[in-house]
Amino acid sequence: MNNFTFQCATKIIFGRDTEHQVGAEVKRYADKVLLHYGGGSIKKSGLYDRVVASLKESGVEIVELGGVQPNPRVSLVRRGIELCREQNIPFILAVGGGSVIDSAKAISVGILYDGDVWDFYSGKAEVERCLPVGAVLTIPAAGSEASIGSVITNEDGWYKKSVDNDLLRPVFAIMNPELTFTLPPYQTACGAADIMAHIMERYFTNTPDVDFTDRLCEATLKTIIENVPIAIENPEDYAARAQIMWASTVAHNGLLGTGREEDWASHQIEHELSALYDVAHGAGLAVVFPAWMKYVYRRNVPRFVQFAVRVWNVEQDFHNPERTALKGIEKTKEFFASIGLPVTLEQLGIKDDRLEEMADRCTKGNTVTKGFFVKLDKDDIVEIYKLARE
Amino acid sequence: MNNFTFQCATKIIFGRDTEHQVGAEVKRYADKVLLHYGGGSIKKSGLYDRVVASLKESGVEIVELGGVQPNPRVSLVRRGIELCREQNIPFILAVGGGSVIDSAKAISVGILYDGDVWDFYSGKAEVERCLPVGAVLTIPAAGSEASIGSVITNEDGWYKKSVDNDLLRPVFAIMNPELTFTLPPYQTACGAADIMAHIMERYFTNTPDVDFTDRLCEATLKTIIENVPIAIENPEDYAARAQIMWASTVAHNGLLGTGREEDWASHQIEHELSALYDVAHGAGLAVVFPAWMKYVYRRNVPRFVQFAVRVWNVEQDFHNPERTALKGIEKTKEFFASIGLPVTLEQLGIKDDRLEEMADRCTKGNTVTKGFFVKLDKDDIVEIYKLARE
Repeated sequence: MNNFTFQCATKIIFGRDTEHQVGAEVKRYADKVLLHYGGGSIKKSGLYDRVVASLKESGVEIVELGGVQPNPRVSLVRRGIELCREQNIPFILAVGGGSVIDSAKAISVGILYDGDVWDFYSGKAEVERCLPVGAVLTIPAAGSEASIGSVITNEDGWYKKSVDNDLLRPVFAIMNPELTFTLPPYQTACGAADIMAHIMERYFTNTPDVDFTDRLCEATLKTIIENVPIAIENPEDYAARAQIMWASTVAHNGLLGTGREEDWASHQIEHELSALYDVAHGAGLAVVFPAWMKYVYRRNVPRFVQFAVRVWNVEQDFHNPERTALKGIEKTKEFFASIGLPVTLEQLGIKDDRLEEMADRCTKGNTVTKGFFVKLDKDDIVEIYKLARE
Repeated sequence: MNNFTFQCATKIIFGRDTEHQVGAEVKRYADKVLLHYGGGSIKKSGLYDRVVASLKESGVEIVELGGVQPNPRVSLVRRGIELCREQNIPFILAVGGGSVIDSAKAISVGILYDGDVWDFYSGKAEVERCLPVGAVLTIPAAGSEASIGSVITNEDGWYKKSVDNDLLRPVFAIMNPELTFTLPPYQTACGAADIMAHIMERYFTNTPDVDFTDRLCEATLKTIIENVPIAIENPEDYAARAQIMWASTVAHNGLLGTGREEDWASHQIEHELSALYDVAHGAGLAVVFPAWMKYVYRRNVPRFVQFAVRVWNVEQDFHNPERTALKGIEKTKEFFASIGLPVTLEQLGIKDDRLEEMADRCTKGNTVTKGFFVKLDKDDIVEIYKLARE
């Protein structure tokens, strides 16, 4: 087990009707807020009206910026920064899923920085301060509501890059599982793949002596595996939606990675798919992760056996650990397929004419490796893309 | 699943040599500190010297108050409050186990209150503000390093009472598993019983649809069950000590209880033992908890079956759930015995001449019930004490 520091101060306000508390929560920090959101879904669902009513009731002045897209764009972030500066806005409220929250985080760091906000994502600048961000979550997936991360896409070259910093954790996250009732099956499934990937990026480690976090990871994975099919079958099953929603936050708030080296190659291999083809992140992960597993499992067969047995209840073949390990990988892929996700590049609508290019971008022209479970260079990543065709 | 609010902002600084960071952490809050600790063990181990050196290096002035006893006394808390007032001390640093941290928390709330600090524990006053407290933990057990609770004993009548408030979470907790190498087997075992009890008080609930936290509870229990025998066998096994230490914090920081009604009868039934006989809290819990289980399991047999199967790997008797449930209870008791804990009142050195008196005190003369899994009145608690004789 490695030394670690862990602090997740995000206040979680969870349950039915909790969106009515948003005004009071914002008011602890500010009298004026940038209300940041995506398309029309929060207006259709009535959430927009409830949030606005609660803010007004608390005497919070509202400036709006909608229009966040999936794979949120740096251009809108820049508009948000300008708006906040012009109007002297001290607090960003994100109402939506991970894209909206990530965009809000980007605005919050950009405001207090003299240069261009993309500098943080390109690695040119480091986050030292930011405005507080609050979230009303509508999609359990990205975990951004309590995470240290923000992922933004730059349309100039279609780069998708992330920043991780403890300062980026929202100060509060309001989570009402009822708000997720309207998520269609495909989006629910994409969320599941994202959540599971956040756990598996931490689970597959070579750090020894991490029993406790192993078991927490397994507990969280099993919760998703059990409840997602229920939520897809019956979108208004509060119990299933609630389990998924809370598990999605814990999956990515950092707890499950305490004391262990994490991997994150699959996320970065997927980011190239999202960047070039604008596919849903979760769908891309459902394709990439099993391929990554097949490519790397020999590095630590016992860990993949543990995964198969504990997470997927695979009957262990004590004489052939590799067979058990492979069954766990197969089960993962089968699960993704069973909830309606693509599991091959073809099903994702991606031909194999740009695999080299994506691997090249991912490794910056083969100058850096990706991942820690196994360090992958450009050729490795090409092989993983190839495995993702099957 | 119930609505909940959860915020655990304690900064966890975990791993080898982390005590050297204490000066820098305190310095974020204060230039002067009350260094609060227990007996001579931190001096013998050298921890005292390292903490003092780190504080001095950061330019933090030190005022000392040692002498905290197990089942920490309100008289020492009062002395601490006076000392802090006289010397104008804005920060309390607890170096030790749960008793020291609980005592530090009590001092931190008492300083800013005009009346007597016991008012908070007797229910006469509510915590509205307190000074910041930091902790360097030496005993994984009470979970006080990140919890909302503080338990204090009043020598005037030997009452042991608790206060729970979010403000009471320490601002940081420094946790070096090496500091626990010197814990003798019995104290390690007492800690294990306390940690397991913190989980089980949350696990045994009638709140439906709490799969996720069920699994987190099971994961944490299994971590303790696996690693405590290793640590008792080899006190300097870093891996085992680290798993226990981190699990002990998560067991009681509130995460495992999110969205569920908790019980806490066993703790209160035990408090009467500690108060009248000054027994170790963990040892008392090892005696009380299995007796409580036997008395209440019929209220929710499926939950006890799940406990037996998932936590203790009991082979399920599908035709006789009660038999499976009882096996889980038996396994719990056997485990406590196997790590050297008493499992009967007699082994704890307690005769049965004051059972009625303790039940009476616990229920304030049979005017209040205890617990939520089953609400227990005085007669119920007498029966539980009787079951604890066997």
